[in-house]
Amino acid sequence: MESFFSFLEKRVDDCSSLLCVGLDPHVSELNEPTPASALDFCLNLVKQTAPYAAAFKPNAAFFEVFGADGWTALKQVIDAIQEESHRLGSMIPVILDAKRGDIASTAEAYAKSTFETLGAHCITLSPYLGKDSIEPFIQNQEKGVFLLCKTSNPGSGDLQDLILAKVSEPSQGLHLYEHVAQLAQTWNTKNNIGLVVGATHIEAMKRVRAAAPDLWFLAPGVGAQGGELESALRAGLRQDGRGVLIPISRSISRSDNPRKAAAEIRDQILEIREQMHRQGE
Amino acid sequence: MESFFSFLEKRVDDCSSLLCVGLDPHVSELNEPTPASALDFCLNLVKQTAPYAAAFKPNAAFFEVFGADGWTALKQVIDAIQEESHRLGSMIPVILDAKRGDIASTAEAYAKSTFETLGAHCITLSPYLGKDSIEPFIQNQEKGVFLLCKTSNPGSGDLQDLILAKVSEPSQGLHLYEHVAQLAQTWNTKNNIGLVVGATHIEAMKRVRAAAPDLWFLAPGVGAQGGELESALRAGLRQDGRGVLIPISRSISRSDNPRKAAAEIRDQILEIREQMHRQGE
Repeated sequence: MESFFSFLEKRVDDCSSLLCVGLDPHVSELNEPTPASALDFCLNLVKQTAPYAAAFKPNAAFFEVFGADGWTALKQVIDAIQEESHRLGSMIPVILDAKRGDIASTAEAYAKSTFETLGAHCITLSPYLGKDSIEPFIQNQEKGVFLLCKTSNPGSGDLQDLILAKVSEPSQGLHLYEHVAQLAQTWNTKNNIGLVVGATHIEAMKRVRAAAPDLWFLAPGVGAQGGELESALRAGLRQDGRGVLIPISRSISRSDNPRKAAAEIRDQILEIREQMHRQGE
Repeated sequence: MESFFSFLEKRVDDCSSLLCVGLDPHVSELNEPTPASALDFCLNLVKQTAPYAAAFKPNAAFFEVFGADGWTALKQVIDAIQEESHRLGSMIPVILDAKRGDIASTAEAYAKSTFETLGAHCITLSPYLGKDSIEPFIQNQEKGVFLLCKTSNPGSGDLQDLILAKVSEPSQGLHLYEHVAQLAQTWNTKNNIGLVVGATHIEAMKRVRAAAPDLWFLAPGVGAQGGELESALRAGLRQDGRGVLIPISRSISRSDNPRKAAAEIRDQILEIREQMHRQGE
């Protein structure tokens, strides 16, 4: 059995890309505010961008808003990614962006929903409820999670930037998000825990990389939210030139040619990685 | 327009109850592991316990695990609660236990899903992403939220019990969950924000009551998880004898007679409130 992040790294190497294509069928993006239109929107993006996608990230909210028909569409999108993967001969991981977080048998039901009912490979989770709320999602090393650590939004500081008192030595004076990063690094015994670290907070990303040298980051905020691709990669990439997934949604979906937009982002990432490699970073 | 908590208080007074009946169609509770069986399970509970229920709380996970058909069942359960409310002549609030938490247009989509597509009146949310992740849910004062503050599970301490440094005067030396309570008290300008405070942590509940004197608590953990009803009410009730909703699931659903079980819990709550009133607490 291979771990989730080995699976992701295989795909990253296959397509030489760190691009994670966000599938966010927000009503403002659709021809009609219907689940059928959301499905078309996503299927088109999958088809056009798959060769350059290290992963796909459908956001549950934009399907859930359509009720039962939205969930049918979400399942169809995930199935279509699998089919496209088979066609390409390289499996593309599906990260369900759902930011769930609950306890005991409820967490088990969400894990089953994500990995069995929907067939996704990974999910974003909130860390607020602690380790037992994460456990049901990481028992099987083939399935992974990205824990919210330092998010890209303006209000992320309300809790995440709080400074911790010197109660236990290792967390003394840390921001809450750094403590989350340390916990995740410790909990990651099966190579299937990563962190969500907004590309809009470069200094924070450097601190998270220091606290969690081994973990993969999912780094939203490049493009629409103003985070810069190069600074995010320089702050977040591991020594091995991997370790950061760059989710992009609107810059691709709103482009006249999503395939070309995805290819260009893939190439920009490649160039920055090569530059860093030459500079021995 | 009435605020969510005025609406809840009207119902609390109508039925003289602080019982919130949890609708958790976990597969182990069902005759068959199907959405139809989940629906039957919930409809039976709604019908039997409605006279004693200050609110109903379906948990999204146990429906989501069935995919699209589960979402159809969830919508039907919420519709059935509305019908039962009309029959009783007293509207019963529906709290969707979903523990969502996302930003910007994604949070808007979850709010629309909860309040419009499903027709619930209130939702549980994670506070980890900060105020802007809460905003779309509280703009309409008729709809409410319960923010996770100190949860009932063993791992709740991993983040929630961390002690904050003396950076800003009011949060100096507080637990993270107390800071969340203070923020919620400040954010509650429309009387539609409450807190989830586990009945399994009585000392913490007292601290949360001190930090947020006005807010309603949703206090899970009585019964199955070992929290005691009386200590939870004594620690959490406001001066006006309200302010704590006691969610109960398994102790009712696994009883031979759910109607009688719900009536008994309602009566126990009434007795404790009267005792407290006599003692001038």
